[in-house]
Amino acid sequence: MMEAKCHKRDLMAIHDAMDILNGKWKISILSTLCYYEERRFSEILNDLTGISNKQLSKELKELELNKLVKRTVLDTQPVTVHYTLTEYGWSLQGLINYLADWGKKHREVIFSAV
Amino acid sequence: MMEAKCHKRDLMAIHDAMDILNGKWKISILSTLCYYEERRFSEILNDLTGISNKQLSKELKELELNKLVKRTVLDTQPVTVHYTLTEYGWSLQGLINYLADWGKKHREVIFSAV
Repeated sequence: MMEAKCHKRDLMAIHDAMDILNGKWKISILSTLCYYEERRFSEILNDLTGISNKQLSKELKELELNKLVKRTVLDTQPVTVHYTLTEYGWSLQGLINYLADWGKKHREVIFSAV
Repeated sequence: MMEAKCHKRDLMAIHDAMDILNGKWKISILSTLCYYEERRFSEILNDLTGISNKQLSKELKELELNKLVKRTVLDTQPVTVHYTLTEYGWSLQGLINYLADWGKKHREVIFSAV
């Protein structure tokens, strides 16, 4: 019974985490900011094959609202906007590395099965 | 340039991983099988607040196709079906633990901000 309660709490925590990280692109966006540290909108668009302008804009706004990503506007000519991870966003670095490793192994599993 | 190539490979690997784990429920289903080791359909339905019968059935089928979950039919009266993680599914245990820890911390961050 104690054990079941503990599992329930873990499951709720995972559900909370996935609520924020869900969607086809969020983890990929966080990953590119994690790898490059600072990235412009057009660079992220180029990093993620298949994402549209509108989708990226929406996802970035949600990540900003959840305090994972910081948007900085620079007073240049023309104006430059760049994105970085917040300190809180950096707390996902371990997850990103884990997923990259797992994804690479998964690719091997898939290719060896063909 | 070498670095950019390496990042691109990591980003592709993450995209591959998320392709399989994406969706509102997949990680939660894998998590409950990770915590309880063996679970019946109705038990999983009960573990995940808000999922419908149809959704759970669809998600389990996809996880089975991707060789992360094993479905076993027992010759009982009435027939019992249970689900377990495959060895490959167990390779996600680290990810699940990471998400549970992060989700708990996230809850604290959210509550402390209110």
